[in-house]
Amino acid sequence: MSSRPACAPTPEPPYYAVIFTSRRTPDDGGYAATAQRMLELASAQPGFLGMESARDEQGLGITVSYWSSLEAIAAWKGHVEHVAAQAAGRQRWYDHYALRIARVERAHAFDAPR
Amino acid sequence: MSSRPACAPTPEPPYYAVIFTSRRTPDDGGYAATAQRMLELASAQPGFLGMESARDEQGLGITVSYWSSLEAIAAWKGHVEHVAAQAAGRQRWYDHYALRIARVERAHAFDAPR
Repeated sequence: MSSRPACAPTPEPPYYAVIFTSRRTPDDGGYAATAQRMLELASAQPGFLGMESARDEQGLGITVSYWSSLEAIAAWKGHVEHVAAQAAGRQRWYDHYALRIARVERAHAFDAPR
Repeated sequence: MSSRPACAPTPEPPYYAVIFTSRRTPDDGGYAATAQRMLELASAQPGFLGMESARDEQGLGITVSYWSSLEAIAAWKGHVEHVAAQAAGRQRWYDHYALRIARVERAHAFDAPR
């Protein structure tokens, strides 16, 4: 087992997912520190349920965060440090992104018996 | 610009997302070919809207596919080749996965003016 978080241990549906798909620019200045800070801040927000993130070698990344309600998502969107990070993301770090808010209706998980 | 697909060009919500988060085993036998075949097959299914996928160096991957309806998702789940691939995934390729079906309610995208 890795010590790195894998699939987020979310509760039974319904809950909400924010699917953030992005393509990075070559500008790495401050990105990693801000991403880490945003994870810490988000994790402390009311209604945060978990986060999963992967970025491949071509620079395409998918981050999915899970929340108990649309109100929790709206509060996180408006967090002052997050608003600043969003602006920096648009100015420097992202060539393109798509953000989707979705209501999780069904879920299941699998663990290999190894 | 990369020739690799980035964010899927989905229509206005509502539509559905299947969020598949997984941790791979070291067993690569047949994985890439099957993943490519599944993308081809899914893309030809009625109701398929797009797919986004990223896997990081630690082996955590997120694939999100988008569909017009729950019926389209159910039909793809039951496709005979997909059923065989799902079984192989559980037997060989995945240590762990979580699969979530969610209704996309809002979406927006950003393209940097560069």
